[in-house]
Amino acid sequence: MPEHLIIIGGVAAGTKAASKVRREKPDLKITLYTEENYVSYSACGMPYFIEGIIPTKERLLVRSPEKFREQENIDIRLLHRVTKIVPENNKIVVKNLETNEEFEDEYSHLLIATGSHAIVPQLEGVDMGKVFKFKTIEDAIKLKEATKTAKKAVIVGGGYIGLELAGVFHSLGIETTIVERLPQILNSFDSDLAYQVQRHIEEKGVKVFTNTTASGDLQEIKDADIILMTIGVKPNVELAREAGIEIGSTGAIKVNKKMQTSIPNIYAAGDCVESINRITGKPVWIPLGSTANKQGRIAAMNITGEAAEFEGVFGSSVAKIFDYTASRTGLSEKEAKGQGFEYEIAIVPHRDRSGYMPNSKDIIIKLIAEKKTGKLLGIQAIGEGDADKRVNVIAAALLGNMTVDELSQTDLTYAPPYSPSIDPLLVAAQILQSKIKKHVPSISPQELQKLTEVEVINIRNLSSDEVAKKILDQGSKAVFLCCDKGLRSYLETLKLREKGYKNVGFIDGGTNLL
Amino acid sequence: MPEHLIIIGGVAAGTKAASKVRREKPDLKITLYTEENYVSYSACGMPYFIEGIIPTKERLLVRSPEKFREQENIDIRLLHRVTKIVPENNKIVVKNLETNEEFEDEYSHLLIATGSHAIVPQLEGVDMGKVFKFKTIEDAIKLKEATKTAKKAVIVGGGYIGLELAGVFHSLGIETTIVERLPQILNSFDSDLAYQVQRHIEEKGVKVFTNTTASGDLQEIKDADIILMTIGVKPNVELAREAGIEIGSTGAIKVNKKMQTSIPNIYAAGDCVESINRITGKPVWIPLGSTANKQGRIAAMNITGEAAEFEGVFGSSVAKIFDYTASRTGLSEKEAKGQGFEYEIAIVPHRDRSGYMPNSKDIIIKLIAEKKTGKLLGIQAIGEGDADKRVNVIAAALLGNMTVDELSQTDLTYAPPYSPSIDPLLVAAQILQSKIKKHVPSISPQELQKLTEVEVINIRNLSSDEVAKKILDQGSKAVFLCCDKGLRSYLETLKLREKGYKNVGFIDGGTNLL
Repeated sequence: MPEHLIIIGGVAAGTKAASKVRREKPDLKITLYTEENYVSYSACGMPYFIEGIIPTKERLLVRSPEKFREQENIDIRLLHRVTKIVPENNKIVVKNLETNEEFEDEYSHLLIATGSHAIVPQLEGVDMGKVFKFKTIEDAIKLKEATKTAKKAVIVGGGYIGLELAGVFHSLGIETTIVERLPQILNSFDSDLAYQVQRHIEEKGVKVFTNTTASGDLQEIKDADIILMTIGVKPNVELAREAGIEIGSTGAIKVNKKMQTSIPNIYAAGDCVESINRITGKPVWIPLGSTANKQGRIAAMNITGEAAEFEGVFGSSVAKIFDYTASRTGLSEKEAKGQGFEYEIAIVPHRDRSGYMPNSKDIIIKLIAEKKTGKLLGIQAIGEGDADKRVNVIAAALLGNMTVDELSQTDLTYAPPYSPSIDPLLVAAQILQSKIKKHVPSISPQELQKLTEVEVINIRNLSSDEVAKKILDQGSKAVFLCCDKGLRSYLETLKLREKGYKNVGFIDGGTNLL
Repeated sequence: MPEHLIIIGGVAAGTKAASKVRREKPDLKITLYTEENYVSYSACGMPYFIEGIIPTKERLLVRSPEKFREQENIDIRLLHRVTKIVPENNKIVVKNLETNEEFEDEYSHLLIATGSHAIVPQLEGVDMGKVFKFKTIEDAIKLKEATKTAKKAVIVGGGYIGLELAGVFHSLGIETTIVERLPQILNSFDSDLAYQVQRHIEEKGVKVFTNTTASGDLQEIKDADIILMTIGVKPNVELAREAGIEIGSTGAIKVNKKMQTSIPNIYAAGDCVESINRITGKPVWIPLGSTANKQGRIAAMNITGEAAEFEGVFGSSVAKIFDYTASRTGLSEKEAKGQGFEYEIAIVPHRDRSGYMPNSKDIIIKLIAEKKTGKLLGIQAIGEGDADKRVNVIAAALLGNMTVDELSQTDLTYAPPYSPSIDPLLVAAQILQSKIKKHVPSISPQELQKLTEVEVINIRNLSSDEVAKKILDQGSKAVFLCCDKGLRSYLETLKLREKGYKNVGFIDGGTNLL
C-alpha cells in the first residue's frame, strides 16, 4: 500500500498539518476533504469582514485549493463530506456534495480535523428565518447580507464571539441587545471584571440582559431583524465516535501528546479534540485557532516520524469588545476555587503607559497565585489600554512555572510610550507578594456588596494622619480602606498594620470597581 | 543613636526607596538630599516634554517635596549637595547650594542613589554655548528653550536617547543630523537590525553619519544651532570611592544582592551601581529607570529588615525612534559571540497582527538561542508594529530559563487585532528549532554582503518545481535561497534538504534586509 495521508477538515489544524507534512515528506500523497466550499480561511477574522474593515471575503482566504496544489502538491477536495471511517480497512467513505456520488478512499495515516459547530436551539415563538449563526464563512456571508438592511438585532450568548459581534453591529448603526442566560457575560472571566466589560458595553448604548433566556416573549426578540445565536459550539466528533475512536470526558476526541487517537494511525487536531490544562493536569475543551495551529503542526511531525509532543494549554485568549480588550490566561479565580486551590488575588486598575502620555489608557489586571507556594495561577486583564501585552508575559511565566516573587523581578522593558516605569504587572506582583507574605486582608468590591455589616472608610480626601485617626476611633473593629483604584488604600493599609492596627484591610481594585 | 535613613539622590531609586521604607517603618526618620532643584521626576518622559506632547514640566514631576513631607513624613532637601561620606562616624557632609553653608548629618543607614551624568567632551573648534546635554530636568528645560528658535541641530551619539531626540527634533521641524563614532547606530543591537532603524531614520530625511567623530570641521556642526551630546553616561561614584566603598569592574558601585555596598550600613541603588547579567553571571552596567525602581525597592526592604534580593538584569529596554519601536532583552548576537556561546539565530520579518487588519504593521524579530541546549539567550525586535510585546514575553521566558522548544508551545493569545494566528514569536521559535535540530544552514544578509563567491537564488517568482530544477542545475555547489522576508526560502530549503539536496541553505530574514 502506498503511503497516503488523508485529512478531514480544512480550516486551521487540517491545512497547517498538510503543509507541515509536505515539507517533511516531499513525495507523500496528501488528500484533504472538506464539506465546506472554502478552505484555509481565518474564521477569527470574520467579524471584521462583517464590519467592513476587511472589504471582501477573499481577504479572509489564506490560500486557495489551486495554490495548495501548485505550491505543495496537496489535493484539496471542497464540498466533499466524509460520511464514515472504517479503521479495520484504513478506509473512509466520501460523498461528493455536488454530484451526490459516494466513493471510498484508502489511507495509511488519517488526520481528523473536523472542528466544531455552533449550537442553535429552536427558539420558541421565533421565526427561524431571522435566526443566524456564525461559524463558517458561509454563515458570515449570510450574516453580512442581513446586516445591510437590519435595524435591530439581538445577540443570544455573551461570550467572546457574541460580544465582538455586538461591537460590530453597533458600529454599523444596528440597535443591538445582548441576551445571556447566565448571571454574567464573558463567563471565562470572573464576574468582577466581566461586570466592568458589561458596563463599558452599556455605556455605548447597547442593552445587556443577564439571567435571561431568549424566547419569542422578549420584546427585543420580537422586534429584531437579526437574532444571532452565539451561545456556544460543540466538537464535531460523530465520525470519530462511530468509528470506535475514544471520546474524552469533555465530549471532544481524546488524543495523547502526539495527537494520536485511540487508533494509532488516526490522529486528530484542532477544535474537535480536548487538551490538557497545564495547570490542573485535567482535560479541557477550549477550541481556539491558535491551539489548532500548534496541534496541526505537532500531529504532522508525528505523522512524518519526527517526535514532538503537545503539552497542553493554559487557556490564553483575547478579544476586542467595543473599545475594550479582554484577555486572560491560566485559571480565573472561580476556576482556582473550583479546582480546590488555596489562592490569593490582586486587582490593580492602572494606566497602561506613563500617565502623562496622551495615548495612555486604563486597564484592570487581576493576578492570581497559590497562597502557599506563590506559584502563579492566572491573570485576567481588561480595559481600553494594552491589557493583552501583560497577559502574554504571564503566558510565558506560567510555562516557566514562575512564582509571584520571580514575576516581581521580571526585567520588563520601559519607556513612557509603552508602559509606566513600574509596569502594572509588576505593581500587581508586588501587591500579591505583600498579601501572601504579610497576610494583609482585603475584600473584593463584589464580596463587599454582599456583606451588610462591614466598616468601610473612603480615604480619597484624607491625609495619612487623618486616616490613622479614623482607624483609632474604630477600636478593634474590622475596617476596610478604599480609594478610587485601590492602590493608595493598599499602601495605607500596609503602613497602619506596621503600626500595629491589625484590624485594617483594603478593598481590592478600589471603588471604581463598585 | 536614633535610627535615621539618609538617601543621597532623588530621581528614581532614591524616592522609591524612601517611600517603601516609610511604609515598613512608619516612625523612622528619613532625609533625602539632592543637589538638583527637582525630585521624583520622570527623566524618561523628558523627550516628550521637548516635543510638546507633555505640555509642562510639572507633568513630569511625580511628587513634590511638600507631598513627600505631608503624605509620608519624608524630609526632602533640594539643592543640597552631599560632599563627603565619613563611614567611620556614620556621617555625611552636606553643602546647601543656595546659602553655601556646610553642615554634617548622621545616619544609621545610608542609601547612595547618586545616578549618572552625561559625558560631554570638549569639541574642538566648537562654540560650547551651542552644546547641550540631556540628563536632568534642568537640561531639558534649557534644550526646550533652544528648540524654539533652532533651525538646524546635530545629535552626537546614536544611542536610544540621541535617536529619540532626533525624532523629536524632526517633528519640531528642525533639520537634524546624527553623528555616531561607531560603525553603527544603536550599539546595543546587532548591526543588521540597527541598519534597518538607520534606513527608517534616513527615509525621514534625517542624515546619519556613522564612523564619524564630531568636530568643528564638520559642516553640519558649523551650521548647527544645537549640538546635543548624547554619547553616553557615567555613574556618579566619586562620593562612594572617596569613602572607600568598593567600585566594581564596570566602574559603577559594587553591591551584593541586598544592594549593600562593601560597607554594611551603606546601600546603593539605581544608575550608580552595577548589576549582574542573569545570563552570563557577569557584572554589567546598564542604567535604566525600570531597574532603578526595582533596586530602590529591594534596598528599602533590606534596610527595614525584610529579606529580599535583587537577582540581576537581562538588559531589557525599549525606545520609540521616529515611527519605529526598538526593543531588546537578553544577549544580542555580538554579545553571545563575545561571551563564547555557541548559538543559533532566526530572523523573522512579519506583520504584527493578522495581515488583513488595517492596523497591522511590520516588525522584524531576531531570536537567539544556545545551539546545544536550545536555551533562549535573547531577542531583538524592531519596526513600526508592536515589537515590544514580543520582547516582554521573552523577558519572562529568560527568567524561566526556557528553551526554544518550550517557547514554541507558549500559549500566546490570538485575535486578529492583536497578532497573526501564529505569532511572529512562535514562527521565530519554529525556525530556530529547525535550524538547531536539523542543522539547516543559513547566512545573514550582512555576511552575504561580505562574501564574493556564493550562489544565491531569488525564488520570489519561482514555483517549488522551478526552484528544485534550479538547484539540480547547481550540482553540489552551496546555494542559498532568498525571498522578500526569508520565510518561503526557509520552507523551500527544508523541503529540498528532505529531498536530499544538502547543499541548500537560505538567507535569514530575506532580501528586504539587504
